[in-house]
Amino acid sequence: MTGIVVTKKPSFSKALSARLAALGVATLHEAIGRRGLMRPSIRPIQTGAKIAGPAVTVLAPPGDNWMLHVAIEQCAPGDVVVLACMSENDDGMFGDLLATSMQARGVAGLILDVGCRDTDTLRAMGFPVWSKAIHARGTIKASLGSVNIPVVCGHVSVRPGDAVVADDDGVVVIPHEEVETAAARGEERVRLEEAKRARLAAGELGLDIYGMRPKLAALGLRYVESLDDMRA
Amino acid sequence: MTGIVVTKKPSFSKALSARLAALGVATLHEAIGRRGLMRPSIRPIQTGAKIAGPAVTVLAPPGDNWMLHVAIEQCAPGDVVVLACMSENDDGMFGDLLATSMQARGVAGLILDVGCRDTDTLRAMGFPVWSKAIHARGTIKASLGSVNIPVVCGHVSVRPGDAVVADDDGVVVIPHEEVETAAARGEERVRLEEAKRARLAAGELGLDIYGMRPKLAALGLRYVESLDDMRA
Amino acid sequence: MTGIVVTKKPSFSKALSARLAALGVATLHEAIGRRGLMRPSIRPIQTGAKIAGPAVTVLAPPGDNWMLHVAIEQCAPGDVVVLACMSENDDGMFGDLLATSMQARGVAGLILDVGCRDTDTLRAMGFPVWSKAIHARGTIKASLGSVNIPVVCGHVSVRPGDAVVADDDGVVVIPHEEVETAAARGEERVRLEEAKRARLAAGELGLDIYGMRPKLAALGLRYVESLDDMRA
Amino acid sequence: MTGIVVTKKPSFSKALSARLAALGVATLHEAIGRRGLMRPSIRPIQTGAKIAGPAVTVLAPPGDNWMLHVAIEQCAPGDVVVLACMSENDDGMFGDLLATSMQARGVAGLILDVGCRDTDTLRAMGFPVWSKAIHARGTIKASLGSVNIPVVCGHVSVRPGDAVVADDDGVVVIPHEEVETAAARGEERVRLEEAKRARLAAGELGLDIYGMRPKLAALGLRYVESLDDMRA
Amino acid sequence: MTGIVVTKKPSFSKALSARLAALGVATLHEAIGRRGLMRPSIRPIQTGAKIAGPAVTVLAPPGDNWMLHVAIEQCAPGDVVVLACMSENDDGMFGDLLATSMQARGVAGLILDVGCRDTDTLRAMGFPVWSKAIHARGTIKASLGSVNIPVVCGHVSVRPGDAVVADDDGVVVIPHEEVETAAARGEERVRLEEAKRARLAAGELGLDIYGMRPKLAALGLRYVESLDDMRA
Amino acid sequence: MTGIVVTKKPSFSKALSARLAALGVATLHEAIGRRGLMRPSIRPIQTGAKIAGPAVTVLAPPGDNWMLHVAIEQCAPGDVVVLACMSENDDGMFGDLLATSMQARGVAGLILDVGCRDTDTLRAMGFPVWSKAIHARGTIKASLGSVNIPVVCGHVSVRPGDAVVADDDGVVVIPHEEVETAAARGEERVRLEEAKRARLAAGELGLDIYGMRPKLAALGLRYVESLDDMRA
Repeated sequence: MTGIVVTKKPSFSKALSARLAALGVATLHEAIGRRGLMRPSIRPIQTGAKIAGPAVTVLAPPGDNWMLHVAIEQCAPGDVVVLACMSENDDGMFGDLLATSMQARGVAGLILDVGCRDTDTLRAMGFPVWSKAIHARGTIKASLGSVNIPVVCGHVSVRPGDAVVADDDGVVVIPHEEVETAAARGEERVRLEEAKRARLAAGELGLDIYGMRPKLAALGLRYVESLDDMRA
Repeated sequence: MTGIVVTKKPSFSKALSARLAALGVATLHEAIGRRGLMRPSIRPIQTGAKIAGPAVTVLAPPGDNWMLHVAIEQCAPGDVVVLACMSENDDGMFGDLLATSMQARGVAGLILDVGCRDTDTLRAMGFPVWSKAIHARGTIKASLGSVNIPVVCGHVSVRPGDAVVADDDGVVVIPHEEVETAAARGEERVRLEEAKRARLAAGELGLDIYGMRPKLAALGLRYVESLDDMRA
Repeated sequence: MTGIVVTKKPSFSKALSARLAALGVATLHEAIGRRGLMRPSIRPIQTGAKIAGPAVTVLAPPGDNWMLHVAIEQCAPGDVVVLACMSENDDGMFGDLLATSMQARGVAGLILDVGCRDTDTLRAMGFPVWSKAIHARGTIKASLGSVNIPVVCGHVSVRPGDAVVADDDGVVVIPHEEVETAAARGEERVRLEEAKRARLAAGELGLDIYGMRPKLAALGLRYVESLDDMRA
Repeated sequence: MTGIVVTKKPSFSKALSARLAALGVATLHEAIGRRGLMRPSIRPIQTGAKIAGPAVTVLAPPGDNWMLHVAIEQCAPGDVVVLACMSENDDGMFGDLLATSMQARGVAGLILDVGCRDTDTLRAMGFPVWSKAIHARGTIKASLGSVNIPVVCGHVSVRPGDAVVADDDGVVVIPHEEVETAAARGEERVRLEEAKRARLAAGELGLDIYGMRPKLAALGLRYVESLDDMRA
Repeated sequence: MTGIVVTKKPSFSKALSARLAALGVATLHEAIGRRGLMRPSIRPIQTGAKIAGPAVTVLAPPGDNWMLHVAIEQCAPGDVVVLACMSENDDGMFGDLLATSMQARGVAGLILDVGCRDTDTLRAMGFPVWSKAIHARGTIKASLGSVNIPVVCGHVSVRPGDAVVADDDGVVVIPHEEVETAAARGEERVRLEEAKRARLAAGELGLDIYGMRPKLAALGLRYVESLDDMRA
Repeated sequence: MTGIVVTKKPSFSKALSARLAALGVATLHEAIGRRGLMRPSIRPIQTGAKIAGPAVTVLAPPGDNWMLHVAIEQCAPGDVVVLACMSENDDGMFGDLLATSMQARGVAGLILDVGCRDTDTLRAMGFPVWSKAIHARGTIKASLGSVNIPVVCGHVSVRPGDAVVADDDGVVVIPHEEVETAAARGEERVRLEEAKRARLAAGELGLDIYGMRPKLAALGLRYVESLDDMRA
């Protein structure tokens, strides 16, 4: 499946993207049943960015960023580009010129399972990137990959149109069929956490709020004043 | 030694903690004979934080953060929680709710030999964390570990009550029997360094200040104008 | 080749260093034919620093920073010190005292294929460092290495006097015979990119600006509305 | 999608498995268009084993191998079990007792994106395993995962019933719809390679057999007697 | 605690060592409550070796193997030498000359948290080694470490006289107070496993032998014919 | 310096290669002053091979093995091919067809700073390879690199014609100007070691043979019966 550009993909509204971005990676990962989280090797090049949007997926050969040019044409405003690589590679497949082009198309941000360069300029431009490395190593434009086919990025399956949410904690992928539900569950989760946060801030213990003491005792948790007591 | 909570541990004064935090990791590591330094894989999630305090230790199963709830009840104000894991694990065992609870108890900060999440919120709250990864991966509450037993974290032995000092350079552990001495030696070291710093800033060379030239010559150090001279 | 200090090395003007620093790592790496880039494991300890200058090279034994003291005497204002290690090592070979001394000599910055410590103070002093780790681990002064011999740092050959350029993207090394040409080519490259940037910012696609469409078609790139079309 | 066991999956004949095993990983990876290869971190615990069969997939929590017991019941003779983990984990999820059970069911072998133990006994039993680590770390049986859902293992998507082929080179996954075609193409590839091998063994060069010289010349490849010639 | 050689240490009989070696790493790790296992980065340089004995511990500076010479004098026949390093280091601290000396003293084997060299000769000599790397990098004899103090090796605390057991699965450490108990529990465990092995070999499932079905059902495990059934 | 093939290189006799191969990596690394050793990430795919010969160097783009075909034509019998890559890459750039061609030309072996495939067949053929990974990932033939220019492989500079020696311990590179001297020094070193080996085998201690006791005492090494004595 190399050399293919799929021109149609599922999508969802910018309003929904905004809700997802506000909820953030950790909350949504929990809300969809602890799935979809990319490996922690994918890190933001900036601090404080929070984005969400439908995925435009790219599969690139190692050291070759040609398909990113092909992908930009397939992007709608608010999309998030996700680049997977055919083998492990840290080359700097993305820099300020491509960012200028993506920003002009309204792309929300970029996830790279390879390296990124021009990071100083990208931060100044406000174009958010999550990548596996910061590396200036230049790439070529010689071989085909594909755009908008299912890929594996950061050890997670991503299909075109799936929701990609990224912030300082990393990147989570939500199947496009579940985006609306995920947002609703995430918001419900936030409401529940608010109540707990207030009680915890007031000094109550999780042990009591969550009723953990009987379960811990049942499993045999013992309190001793010193390890010597235990051995006695 | 799973399923044990030791309720008493050695401690030391907040004044002493403040002296240790001011001295910092590099100075104290040297002051105690170049011991106690955690591996550089344990990194701060924030910049500029400097903390010190008696350790509350936690041993957790991989992917299970239940013992953190148990540990909070054992914390006194000023304590530093140190979480070791039974096997290598990057899961996000700590987030903003647990931080709210720790902050309510006056905990000074947290050292994690696993992952951390909600990093944006933690920085906003001013709750300092050092961790092996930033990862939103959720954890369960199913199995027992222990609290306040000796653990190995970041390749260093930590006993409950040992002093834990952390800053931008990493984390150092000082045996509780040696905390007072370490602080005194660290402060002496700082005084000695101040005099040297002034001389170095004035352009004097370490070669002269430390009297290194004769030793280097004795070992055979040769100065040549080019490598060709040497081969001649 | 241990125990040698070479006292003469090629150099170039501060004006040329300033031009290189302004061009930055990614541009110069491309301008010299995609060579000379250190591995991405060498990272800046600060954000936003951009330096360039002739290399003073240091080869150090693991855990021993004695040769840094020897090297400082060989530094001219504007030089960049590059420390390679005889084996893989993360020890904190450099801290604020050595930085004070280097700053007094006018050294522009430091590249370490080992660890760095006192990072908070170094940032406050404004002395820029790129290193393989942040680690407070102390070092000894017991064995000889060499100064100003050819070394391999970050998987790149560096000879004394070669230009070292470092910024947020990493570190690139330019052979001293090619520095002037590299600067000129880099500046030409920047001019060409400016024109492209304006067109990309206006929404034109790289596919059209670079005339990529016929080449992609010739290689067989296919556009389909869905993968099902393709299988049909 | 946790807590689900899917009891039906696609399959293919033992004769086809035998053809795939004989072709091997490198040939089949090429035959299906350079796809489906697991990352090289998944390594065999033995030398010389060559297996192929339909995948029974397992998704396990870190440190918990309960789902392997559930999976064995779903295995038909000749199947290959593929275990993916919810987060990065090196625990020894598999040892000689489970191997005894799998061998009794006729399972062809096991791919683990975690650790393996009892490796000495497994080799003696002749039960082949590919794993990310060799580690004796024990696991629990406390939480649900799933069996026969799509997983990502070794950075590759695997669906139940896909063909898994493993040998000393690693592991490749072939979509179940393409298994017959892949075998045919692989065998054709082997035939073509045989002819080339004979010519290469006779001393002919790939440059001539593959007609590479004109293409290399067109790209500007230059032959010189020394680099000095080139600079002249 | 540098520069100290402790000349007395706890010990146990060769008969007990033989029982431990026969039980192996995985069984003993389980028998002592899943503790004491070194990280999987410590690997055997040979296949099939199984050793056990009281630890002689060594703490060495990076790149300096002097303390190994000091340690040999402290070894009794049957001891296992465990070398920890003050910082991360892969240098080849051990080769065939030191092995000749250790073999002459009756040392059972060596655990290195650094590199090993002369591996071909060591295998021919039959002197078993577990190490973090195979690397010929030479070391110096310039700085003091210590012998027979508590160390951390492979992320595990080891005290002199603790039992060290190593085989193809890795290395486990048993506190010297618990060696007798560990052997007895390990042997009981082996007996219990034999019975289970026979039933598993006869085709019975772990699901039935261990009575897992009701627990899995209680947690909500669902069996479906396809994922579509589930979504329906 | 891309797109260049240098057709002449220094060389040395097969008799000298045989002496180097017999001496091995560890001895020669010491004999030339502890230089020239590749990083331990470059590992043999077989056990027991010992080779030496003049280097034919190759610089390849990531994922592209075209230059290996170009290099074979430049090989004389007894040469060792050394492949460096423009960026970090694990792709399987070498397999059985290229090995057949190299074997036909009399090439002694291959060092790869990338991946290798068809490892089972290569072992059966007796063609020795050292590589950074075992990976079947296929490569393309699209971009130029160079042959017989200076490269960095395994973090060591290699020039065409330098001696490359490889065995189970790894790979060492000897500058071609020093090959004769290195062999002589290595053989002298072996003679000296033989005498020491006999004394060590007879039970004498290195402490006595090397006269270490006074130096250790002078540095302050203390012998105590227990750590408590020391604290007293």
